[in-house]
Amino acid sequence: MELAGRLRGIFPPLVTPFTSEGALDLGAFEANLEAYAGTGLAGYLVLGSNGEANVLEESEKLELISSARRLAGGRPLLAGAGLESTRATIALVRKAADAGADGVLVLPPFYFRARMSDDALRRHFEAVAEASPVPVLLYSVPQVTGSSLSPALVAALARHPNLAGIKESSGDIALLGRIAAAAPLSFATMCGSGPVIYPALCVGARGGILAVACCSPRPAAALFDAYQSGDHARARRLQEELLPLAAAVTSGHGVAGLKAAMELAGLRGGSLREPLLPVPASVREELGALLRRAEAAA
Amino acid sequence: MELAGRLRGIFPPLVTPFTSEGALDLGAFEANLEAYAGTGLAGYLVLGSNGEANVLEESEKLELISSARRLAGGRPLLAGAGLESTRATIALVRKAADAGADGVLVLPPFYFRARMSDDALRRHFEAVAEASPVPVLLYSVPQVTGSSLSPALVAALARHPNLAGIKESSGDIALLGRIAAAAPLSFATMCGSGPVIYPALCVGARGGILAVACCSPRPAAALFDAYQSGDHARARRLQEELLPLAAAVTSGHGVAGLKAAMELAGLRGGSLREPLLPVPASVREELGALLRRAEAAA
Amino acid sequence: MELAGRLRGIFPPLVTPFTSEGALDLGAFEANLEAYAGTGLAGYLVLGSNGEANVLEESEKLELISSARRLAGGRPLLAGAGLESTRATIALVRKAADAGADGVLVLPPFYFRARMSDDALRRHFEAVAEASPVPVLLYSVPQVTGSSLSPALVAALARHPNLAGIKESSGDIALLGRIAAAAPLSFATMCGSGPVIYPALCVGARGGILAVACCSPRPAAALFDAYQSGDHARARRLQEELLPLAAAVTSGHGVAGLKAAMELAGLRGGSLREPLLPVPASVREELGALLRRAEAAA
Amino acid sequence: MELAGRLRGIFPPLVTPFTSEGALDLGAFEANLEAYAGTGLAGYLVLGSNGEANVLEESEKLELISSARRLAGGRPLLAGAGLESTRATIALVRKAADAGADGVLVLPPFYFRARMSDDALRRHFEAVAEASPVPVLLYSVPQVTGSSLSPALVAALARHPNLAGIKESSGDIALLGRIAAAAPLSFATMCGSGPVIYPALCVGARGGILAVACCSPRPAAALFDAYQSGDHARARRLQEELLPLAAAVTSGHGVAGLKAAMELAGLRGGSLREPLLPVPASVREELGALLRRAEAAA
Repeated sequence: MELAGRLRGIFPPLVTPFTSEGALDLGAFEANLEAYAGTGLAGYLVLGSNGEANVLEESEKLELISSARRLAGGRPLLAGAGLESTRATIALVRKAADAGADGVLVLPPFYFRARMSDDALRRHFEAVAEASPVPVLLYSVPQVTGSSLSPALVAALARHPNLAGIKESSGDIALLGRIAAAAPLSFATMCGSGPVIYPALCVGARGGILAVACCSPRPAAALFDAYQSGDHARARRLQEELLPLAAAVTSGHGVAGLKAAMELAGLRGGSLREPLLPVPASVREELGALLRRAEAAA
Repeated sequence: MELAGRLRGIFPPLVTPFTSEGALDLGAFEANLEAYAGTGLAGYLVLGSNGEANVLEESEKLELISSARRLAGGRPLLAGAGLESTRATIALVRKAADAGADGVLVLPPFYFRARMSDDALRRHFEAVAEASPVPVLLYSVPQVTGSSLSPALVAALARHPNLAGIKESSGDIALLGRIAAAAPLSFATMCGSGPVIYPALCVGARGGILAVACCSPRPAAALFDAYQSGDHARARRLQEELLPLAAAVTSGHGVAGLKAAMELAGLRGGSLREPLLPVPASVREELGALLRRAEAAA
Repeated sequence: MELAGRLRGIFPPLVTPFTSEGALDLGAFEANLEAYAGTGLAGYLVLGSNGEANVLEESEKLELISSARRLAGGRPLLAGAGLESTRATIALVRKAADAGADGVLVLPPFYFRARMSDDALRRHFEAVAEASPVPVLLYSVPQVTGSSLSPALVAALARHPNLAGIKESSGDIALLGRIAAAAPLSFATMCGSGPVIYPALCVGARGGILAVACCSPRPAAALFDAYQSGDHARARRLQEELLPLAAAVTSGHGVAGLKAAMELAGLRGGSLREPLLPVPASVREELGALLRRAEAAA
Repeated sequence: MELAGRLRGIFPPLVTPFTSEGALDLGAFEANLEAYAGTGLAGYLVLGSNGEANVLEESEKLELISSARRLAGGRPLLAGAGLESTRATIALVRKAADAGADGVLVLPPFYFRARMSDDALRRHFEAVAEASPVPVLLYSVPQVTGSSLSPALVAALARHPNLAGIKESSGDIALLGRIAAAAPLSFATMCGSGPVIYPALCVGARGGILAVACCSPRPAAALFDAYQSGDHARARRLQEELLPLAAAVTSGHGVAGLKAAMELAGLRGGSLREPLLPVPASVREELGALLRRAEAAA
C-alpha cells in the first residue's frame, strides 16, 4: 500500500531520551517503543522536533531510525530529515531511507527565513522529492520556522508523485482545512497539534502526529477511533480532556514538559540536552494532574 | 428567555451602507434587513467591525440600532458599544439599550494595548456589566486589538450574571474550545470567523456572527442547520465551499470586499467611508465566482 | 516664520490630568504649563498619546487647546487631531485650528490596519492637509497603530505644502534617518522616542516630542542644547542618564508611569481615566530613583 | 593586547563563495581577503550569517578559518561557532580556536526559541565561555533567532572574563546603547547593522561587523575614521550615502544581494547554496547604482 494510504490515525513524535551526561539512551528509546505496542498508535515519527533532532549528530540519527525500524513492526515509520541546504537534506534523506524509514518529514530551511519565498521552497522540496528513495512529507511548523507553508505552495507540491503528505503543526484549522480540501487523494494531511486534533479531523485531516500521544497514547488513539466511528460527542469530550495536557507538553513547557510527563506516565523521557532545562517541580505536579485527567477520559 | 439562550445559530454583523458622499444610507440598511428575513438567520449584530462603527457618529449609531430594532422582529438584536474609556463605554451601552438593543458587544480598549492587562480588562468589563441595562458580550478580535482575550480572563468574567457571552473572532479553535469548555451554561460562545464556523461548532460554539452571512446568508444558515441535525458530512462540505468566500470578505479584502460581495448578491453594500477604498474590478470578479460557489452548495 | 522652521528643540507631549473622579482637571494642566516656562522647552504638543486623547470628548479637547494657547506664549503649539475617518479628522482639525493650534498632529486610522495601504494613507493625509487651515504633521507610532509610516509614503507626502513634518516614534533610527535624509527643508522630522533622541539628532531629527520631557524638562532640553553646540560627549552622557527614565515612562509603564513621575517631580500628573490603572508603589520608587539620576545629569 | 581592545573599527562578515555546482571556492575566498588588504578594515569575521555558516560542513568551516588565518596578517580574526546544543558548540569552538580564530562569535540556539529564557541562555554562554580556549562574543540577531539578547542577560554575561563582546545586529539603537553603557571596559559592543553604524558609534559601539563592508570596504572604513576624528558631519553624510546599499544587502536582498554587489564591485561573491536563489537582473541594476553612490561618498 502507498505510504499516503497508511498515514491514518495517531503517530507519536518519539522523544530521544538522553542520559544525565547527555549521551543517547537507546535502551530507554526502545523501552518506549515496546510500551507503545498495543496502545492503538498507528505508526511512528522519529527525529521530529520533539525528538530533539536539532541537537543530534548524524550517526545518532541513523541509529535511532534503525532502532525504531526494528521495533516498529509493520507500522509506518517516518523520520525527520530537513536541514538548511538542499544538498545536505538530500544526503540525509537517502541515509534515512537506507536506515529503514518508510518516509521522511522535511522541515523547510529557516535560518534565512526572509528569503524562503514560495518559489525558493518549491524548488527545494521538489529537488528533495526527486532525489528521495522514499516518499516525502512537508513539515509546517511556524513556531520553529517563523511562518506556515502557504496553501498555494502545498497545493502545488501535493501534485508531485513523491510528496505524500504534510504535518501541519500551526494549529490554524482554517489553513489545515484549505490544505486538506485542495489536496489529491495521494496526499495525506496530518495534524501536528494535539489541542486541535478533533476539529482537524472534522475538516479533513487523516490523523495526527501529536506530542501528547507520547505520554498519553491511549486517550489520543481513543479520540481518533471515536471520530472514525462517527461518535462526535465522545471525540469532543476526549478533545476537551486532552487539550490542557496537549497544550502543556507543547506551547506550555515544550520537550522538557513532554519528557517529564512521560516519566510520570511510567515511560522513559530521560534527560534533555542543554541548553534545554528540565521543568521545575511545580510544573511536574501540574503535568501529573493533567495526565490523570487525560487518562481518566479514555 | 435569557439572552444567552437565544444566542444560537447564525447572526450577520450588519454592514452600514453609505451614499457616495459618505452619508448614512438608512434606506439601504433597511432593505438588507428586509432581504434577510426568511433566510434562516437567527438574529443580528449592528455596529460591529463590519458595520464600520469606528467611523460612525453617536447619533448615527443610535439611528441604526432603532432601525434594526424595528425590522428585527422577535430576533435578538446585539449592538457594538465598546469605546476607549470605561466611562464612555458605559454611557454608550445605556443609550444602545434605550434604542432597542437586546445585548451589547464590547470590544476591549486597545489604544494602549500594552497596558491592557487581564486585571485592567477585568475591571473594565465588570464595570460595564454592572452598569449595563442589557446583557454584555465580550468581543475578542486580535486583528483589531492586537491580542485575544485570554481563557483565564474570559472564565473569570463568564461568572458575572450580566455577561452573556463572547464573540471570539481570532480563528484559533483551541482557544475557542477552551473558552467554551470552561464557560457556564449562562454564557454563550459565538464564533466570529466564517472560515472556521464548522469546527468551532464541533468544539462548543453555539453559533456564529459571521461576515460571510451578510452576503451569503442561506449557505451560512444551512451549515448551522446541518451541524445541528448531526449531518457532519454536509456541514463539512458547506464549510469547504464557504471558506474561500468567508476568507475573502474578512482577512482577504475586509469590509470593502464584503460590501462588494453584497452588491453582487443583490443586496445593498453601499459605499465606504474614507480612508477605506473600494476593491478593484479584479477583486469583484473573484468575489463573484466565490459567491456563486457558496450559493451552489446550499 | 513657517511652522516647520519653528519645529526645533524639545516639546513635551502634555499629559491631561484628571481628578480622582475622572473629570478634566484644567487647573492642574495649567499649573504644569506654568512650571514648564523657563525650563528650556521649545513648544508644546497637546492631545498626543500621552495626553490620553483617545478618552477625551471633543469639548474637552478644544478646552485643552484653548488653555494651552493662552499659556504657550509665543511657543509653537501642536494639537493631536487624528480620528478614524477622513471626514471626522478634517472636522476636528478645523476646530483645533480655531481653538489656537499652530499645527495638528495626525495619527493614521488604524482600526482596519490591514487596509491602510500606502495608497489609502496618502489619500487620507492629502485630504486632511488640503482641508486644514494650519500645517499638518504626520504621526508614526507603531506601538499604537501596528506599523510605521513607510519612508516612501513620507517622502511622497513631504512634498505637500501643508505637510510640515512628522513625529516619528518607532525608535527605529535607520527609518528616522531615511525620512530625514529624503525630506525637503520645509519638512521637519521630530523624534518621538526619548531613549534615542541623541542618535536621532545625529541622523537628522530637528528635535524631539518626548514623554520624558514632561517629567524632566531640564535634562531633555540640556541634551538638545549640548547637541546643538557640538558637545557630543555631553549629549551622549545625558542620553545615557535619561534613557532608563525615558524607557520607564513609555514602553515600561506608559502614561501611568509618566503621571507618577510628574507627581514625584513636583508637577501635576493627576489621575488616569479607566481602564488605565495607576502604577504600584514599587514602580513609583523605581521612578523616583530614575528621576533623581536624570536630574543629577543636567 | 586583549581581544576586546582589538575590537575596534570595521570588520566585514566574510562571504563564502561557492562554485556554480555548490562546492566551496576557496580561491575566490582568498582573493577577497587579498583585495581587502589596504582598504582600512580592522579585522575579519568568518562563518557569520553572511558566510552561510548554516549550510557549511564542519570540515569546510575549519578550512575557511585556516585560510583566513593565513591571510589576515596581524588583524583579529573572529569565527562564527554557534550550534544548537551546548556540547556541540563547545566542540566547534575548540576546533575553531585550533584552526586559528582569535575569538568566536556564538549565536544562541533558536530552534526551541520559546524555551531560550535568560536563565537557559546564561548557562549556555557561560559553559561555552568556560570551555573556549579563545574569547567568546555574543551574537544577537533577532532576524534569525526571533528575539534580541536582553540587556540584563548581556550585562550579566559581560562580567565573565572570557566573554569579550557582542555583535548586536538588531538595529535597535536604544538597546545597543543600553548594552554599551552597562558593559565593562573589557567587553566590546560591536554594531552588526550597517544602516545604523554611525548612530551606534555615537552611543558607544566600538566598531561594526557590517555586510556592507564586504562590498564597499572603503566608505565603511571612512565612516569609522570620520567618527573617530570627531568629524560628525562627514560621518553623518557617509551614513546617509551608505544606508540604502547597507539596507539592500541585508534586509532588502540578503546574502544573494551581497554576493551580487561584491561581483559588481570587482570582488568574488560566487554562487549561493540552494535553497537560496540569486537576485534577478533588476536587483543587480539597483545594487550597481547604490554601490556607485556609496563609493562616490568616500
